[in-house]
Amino acid sequence: MAREGILIVVSGFSGAGKGTIMKELTGRHEQYALSVSATTREARPGEKEGKDYFFKSREDFERMIEEGALIEYARYVGNYYGTPKAYVEEMLLSGKDVILEIEIQGARKIREQFPNAVLLFVTTKDAQVLRERLKKRGTESREVIQKRLLRAVQESEGIEEYDYLVVNDELNACVAEIHSIIESEHRKIRYNMELVNRVREELRSFSKGE
Amino acid sequence: MAREGILIVVSGFSGAGKGTIMKELTGRHEQYALSVSATTREARPGEKEGKDYFFKSREDFERMIEEGALIEYARYVGNYYGTPKAYVEEMLLSGKDVILEIEIQGARKIREQFPNAVLLFVTTKDAQVLRERLKKRGTESREVIQKRLLRAVQESEGIEEYDYLVVNDELNACVAEIHSIIESEHRKIRYNMELVNRVREELRSFSKGE
Repeated sequence: MAREGILIVVSGFSGAGKGTIMKELTGRHEQYALSVSATTREARPGEKEGKDYFFKSREDFERMIEEGALIEYARYVGNYYGTPKAYVEEMLLSGKDVILEIEIQGARKIREQFPNAVLLFVTTKDAQVLRERLKKRGTESREVIQKRLLRAVQESEGIEEYDYLVVNDELNACVAEIHSIIESEHRKIRYNMELVNRVREELRSFSKGE
Repeated sequence: MAREGILIVVSGFSGAGKGTIMKELTGRHEQYALSVSATTREARPGEKEGKDYFFKSREDFERMIEEGALIEYARYVGNYYGTPKAYVEEMLLSGKDVILEIEIQGARKIREQFPNAVLLFVTTKDAQVLRERLKKRGTESREVIQKRLLRAVQESEGIEEYDYLVVNDELNACVAEIHSIIESEHRKIRYNMELVNRVREELRSFSKGE
C-alpha cells in the first residue's frame, strides 16, 4: 500500500538557495515531486507542457480561477501564475510528497485548503551571505541590490506562520535535514491509523483468547 | 547559547520495548535526560535519591499535590507516583530534552501544561510480537497474559491524541527515528526566532545601505 503523500511548501529569502535545494532533494529521493504551475505566459524555447508549466490561454486560466481549480494564483508582469489543484491532489494520492515553491500569500492559501501541509522557510545563517549571493548574481546596481534586500525583509514578515526553519549553511546537510523533517512528518499519528487499527484489532482478538 | 529543551512523552504498548529504547536514546545522545519521578514508596536496595526517584513522605507528597508542584501524579498499589514540575522545568531550561515515560492520563496533563510537548506512542509492527514478548517475560498464566493484552487495547484508546507513532521493529532504527523526530522538532519556527530576528535586522540595515 502506498503511503499518503505530504504537501510541502518551501519559501525563503531570495538567495537562500531554494532552487538548488529542491533540485537536490528531488534528485536524491523518488518520493518527491515538484508541483507544476499553470501560466498564461508564452513558453520559452525548450520548455515543455506539463513539465515546466501547464501553458494556458488567459481565457482558460480565468475559467480555472472561477471554477476553483487553482489552489493559489498571482499576477506578475502582466501574466498569471497558479497552482492547479487537480495535479497536486493526483500526485498526493499516488503517494508523492509534493513540493510547492511559493511565497507567504500562496502559503496561506495552501494552509487553508490543505491543513496538513508542511510549511518550510529557508534562510542562510546570516544576511551577509544573502547580500554576497545577490551581488554575485549579476551586474545589478547598488540600488537594485538594496531593493532586493528590502524585499527579503518583507518576505520574512510572515515567517511565524511557517512550521519549520531550515538553515542552508551547507547544501548536503540542509537537504538531509529537510528530508528528515518530511520523514518525521510521515510518522505523525494521522498517517498511521491503518497500522494502529490493525494492531488494536489483533490485540482485541488475542485478549479474548482467539 | 543553549537551545531550549523539548519535553517528550513516551507511551506505548506493554512489551513494545519503551524501556530499552529510552536507555539506548539517553546512552547515545547527551541531549536527553529522563525525568525523575517522586514517590511515597520505600527505596529498594541500590536505589538512589534524585536518580531513581525523589523519595517523599506521604505528607510531603500531598503538600506537593496541593501546591501544584506535580505536573501529573497517580496512585498505584497504595503509593503515590508523580512528576515534579520544578525538576522538569530546570532540565528544559538547561537545554536538555526531557523524556517522561507515562500513560495517556498523564500525557493529557502534560499537554495542558506544556503545549509544545511532543507525544510519542511506541508500538510493535503487529500484536503477535507483543504477545510473544509478554509470554517470555515470566511464567504467567494464560489468563494473566490475556489480561495484559486487554490492557494494551485500553492503552491504545487515546492514541489519536499523540503526535507520532514509532514502530519498534528493529531497535537501532527505532532509536534513530525517535532522535530524528526530536531533531526535526527543534527546527520548528518557535525555537528559532532568535536567528530569524537577527537575520531580519541585518537585512533591514543592509537594505538601508548601512
